[in-house]
Amino acid sequence: MTPQHYRKADRLLVAADCIIFGFDGRELKVLIVKRSFEPEAGRWSLVGGFVDARESVNDAAARILKRLTGLDNIYMEQLHCFGDVNRDPAARVISIAYFALINIADYSRQLNLEHEPHWCSLKNLPDLIFDHGQMVKLAVERLQQKIATHPVGFELLPRKFTLPQLQNLYEAIYQAKLDRRNFSRKILSLGILKKLDEKEKGSSKKGAFLYVFDRKRYEQLSHEGLKFV
Amino acid sequence: MTPQHYRKADRLLVAADCIIFGFDGRELKVLIVKRSFEPEAGRWSLVGGFVDARESVNDAAARILKRLTGLDNIYMEQLHCFGDVNRDPAARVISIAYFALINIADYSRQLNLEHEPHWCSLKNLPDLIFDHGQMVKLAVERLQQKIATHPVGFELLPRKFTLPQLQNLYEAIYQAKLDRRNFSRKILSLGILKKLDEKEKGSSKKGAFLYVFDRKRYEQLSHEGLKFV
Repeated sequence: MTPQHYRKADRLLVAADCIIFGFDGRELKVLIVKRSFEPEAGRWSLVGGFVDARESVNDAAARILKRLTGLDNIYMEQLHCFGDVNRDPAARVISIAYFALINIADYSRQLNLEHEPHWCSLKNLPDLIFDHGQMVKLAVERLQQKIATHPVGFELLPRKFTLPQLQNLYEAIYQAKLDRRNFSRKILSLGILKKLDEKEKGSSKKGAFLYVFDRKRYEQLSHEGLKFV
Repeated sequence: MTPQHYRKADRLLVAADCIIFGFDGRELKVLIVKRSFEPEAGRWSLVGGFVDARESVNDAAARILKRLTGLDNIYMEQLHCFGDVNRDPAARVISIAYFALINIADYSRQLNLEHEPHWCSLKNLPDLIFDHGQMVKLAVERLQQKIATHPVGFELLPRKFTLPQLQNLYEAIYQAKLDRRNFSRKILSLGILKKLDEKEKGSSKKGAFLYVFDRKRYEQLSHEGLKFV
């Protein structure tokens, strides 16, 4: 029997919302869908839905992402609980937000079009329902913090890539231009890259050397993170 | 009127749990209390309680902390939503965990003894109820990640402090010994410390130079964080 102290407590609706970032080699995009029910039916929304009593919140996020977009087996990290009282005008709903960063091309065949999923450039994001705009903003900040201490790119770039390609990825996440020399110096000093004896010649006459990630060192830094002391 | 889609959704109990870390100049401690209701009445627990329908989750965490311990105006950060189905044997309860790091001495007069609050050394933490042990573990990891990119100590050390005192704080958070020379070199390179023309002579014959934080630089780094590119 439920203890008395529990019976007196309020019960709330709990939602899970997913911020799926995609990289297409040039830009950072966010996956949004057309909301299919009231309130705000027909407006752009993050991928979200209600958590059921018999599933964990993490499982709910994965289930909702799959049901609305077809995307499966994506490693999402928890971002934050959005718990303001009036964030949803229809009822008291708290939302647990999740985020992930994927390579758009790798998942294009999984995408299910029923809810009109749309990869929207971060720069041109339309107004989203409720506090979903704040969720995206916080997720971008978290992603920026994360790449400050953890290597990124393994699943987002081709196996062989140039330093300008890697810099594009960092610039897309930081939403800012980086100094080319500084970037090269710092990224090479981490020891996560192996230079190949091979050049990519598509983008300039001289060509740019190709690199691969040193998987062992990359995983070590992914696990430990960089520390300043 | 609540839309139909909402009426069909499950409603869950939502708790807020607080991991309050305290530093006493030597050790990292965690504030625990005696649980006063079933299940698990009388066992050690984090400071926690249920979120009401008419308050934000953040407000609930502050209210619960104040009610159970007397501690007020503490800046807590959200840690994680613990959302497994069976984490509480009495009912489906999801918990939003929060954490903070305070100077124990600064708050000793606020502490209200009704629920037997106890500053317990992280090394000797007793078994806590439910998944509270996991919450502490995750909070320690988050704190460690945070000090990898953000300066720490402003509110935890005396205004004038020695490098060994600052190193103690880092060692308490990392739960590991650090190399003295490496630590000094790296921490000084951040430019957050101003060396005074004054020595602390209590702990050694030669004495150790005293430092203060360069508040402007400290706040700049707190805000921006350290980046490796």
